[in-house]
Amino acid sequence: MGYKIYLVGIGPGRLDGMTVEAARVLDACDVIVGYTAYLALLGERYADKELLSTPMRRETERCRLCFSKAREGKATAMVCSGDAGVYGMASLMYELGEEYPDCEIVVVPGVTAANSGAACLGAPLGHDYCCISLSDLLIPWEQIGVRLRAAAQGDFVIVLYNPASRQRADHLRRACDILLETIEPARPCGYVRRIGREGEEARVCTLLELRETPADMFTTVFIGNSGTRLIDGRLVTGRDYRR
Amino acid sequence: MGYKIYLVGIGPGRLDGMTVEAARVLDACDVIVGYTAYLALLGERYADKELLSTPMRRETERCRLCFSKAREGKATAMVCSGDAGVYGMASLMYELGEEYPDCEIVVVPGVTAANSGAACLGAPLGHDYCCISLSDLLIPWEQIGVRLRAAAQGDFVIVLYNPASRQRADHLRRACDILLETIEPARPCGYVRRIGREGEEARVCTLLELRETPADMFTTVFIGNSGTRLIDGRLVTGRDYRR
Repeated sequence: MGYKIYLVGIGPGRLDGMTVEAARVLDACDVIVGYTAYLALLGERYADKELLSTPMRRETERCRLCFSKAREGKATAMVCSGDAGVYGMASLMYELGEEYPDCEIVVVPGVTAANSGAACLGAPLGHDYCCISLSDLLIPWEQIGVRLRAAAQGDFVIVLYNPASRQRADHLRRACDILLETIEPARPCGYVRRIGREGEEARVCTLLELRETPADMFTTVFIGNSGTRLIDGRLVTGRDYRR
Repeated sequence: MGYKIYLVGIGPGRLDGMTVEAARVLDACDVIVGYTAYLALLGERYADKELLSTPMRRETERCRLCFSKAREGKATAMVCSGDAGVYGMASLMYELGEEYPDCEIVVVPGVTAANSGAACLGAPLGHDYCCISLSDLLIPWEQIGVRLRAAAQGDFVIVLYNPASRQRADHLRRACDILLETIEPARPCGYVRRIGREGEEARVCTLLELRETPADMFTTVFIGNSGTRLIDGRLVTGRDYRR
């Protein structure tokens, strides 16, 4: 007998940041699995569901919990902040799914921090952009450096996810040093803390100032391209390079 | 007196692909401005609103229509498909907004095609990715080539927007030729046509096959990174480079 698991991106934080489809899927579920902090964001609306979690870094267990609940015949969703496909659990679920051939995985997309954070700052993603995670838990720092240099070389707008954590407090500074090899220190940048949550804070700054900015795992960072400018305090990347 | 314009990303197509917040903002508006095709997607739900449009390529006029309606005191929203900040109208609105200092622009983010298309294919965006538009209407093709080479150099997952149109039928083939300079022909890729709309079609293929794929302006293309693989027909980029 086949069964399904929904991987639901809940967007940046507030319940109204998820799509209408995501809300409908969660409403119809018996079991919602997720990292504790995301389950807390879902608040009382889903208090009637079976809410299940595992601690951080216990992602594989969390995924297996989904498969086992779904196999019991329960309508099961896993929630991720932002979009489940972007540094989320979707790829791990597909990898583990090879062991559960009866299970169909359905990704319900959500607004990832690149897009929700951009909306807080203005319109920094008006042209080609890339997303780079500064976490070296799963990939070597050298590869992150290669990507930063390639992104600068290509004049992309750059969005940094996971710019710092307690274990890697200096990653944003190290990333800025790499970018400063080729990008001018006055390049317009910005960052947003706690997007869509209590205490949301959006700021613009230069690349040099960004180097000195304390960041944490709830911060998303934006580095403009050569055409990005400030308009009335907003970070804006135009679409037209010919002007 | 200050006034506000909401720039609302409606996601890939179906009404339930927009966020709960986006739906609430549109519900509360008197006037909805947008490209005709997007207004059509909103269907009968908003038939009681004043729905205004201008033809394609008349974007500046369309933006000015927003400012003038908002200045009349009407609650005004501009809709864009996907996210208004990604190759959408947000940056142009901020640029024109310099002439309307009383106007506050609020971007309500949406699910852009990179994320909604990825969900149709599996989990191709499981690690660092970039979005590149192949339209050379507003930037020179040479700059697009620089970005494609940089993206390949950085081993990013690459999402291509606007891969072709009637005027530039061969852009996807030309882009693939550039990528094939450094990426192996068998690299797993995929594309999605008409995401979230009637006739949606998602396919996986190799980079060499992608070169021969007819694309149009309703197609979004995905090129995997060196770790992307097919799992049961789904395009999956793992998070863990150390395996």
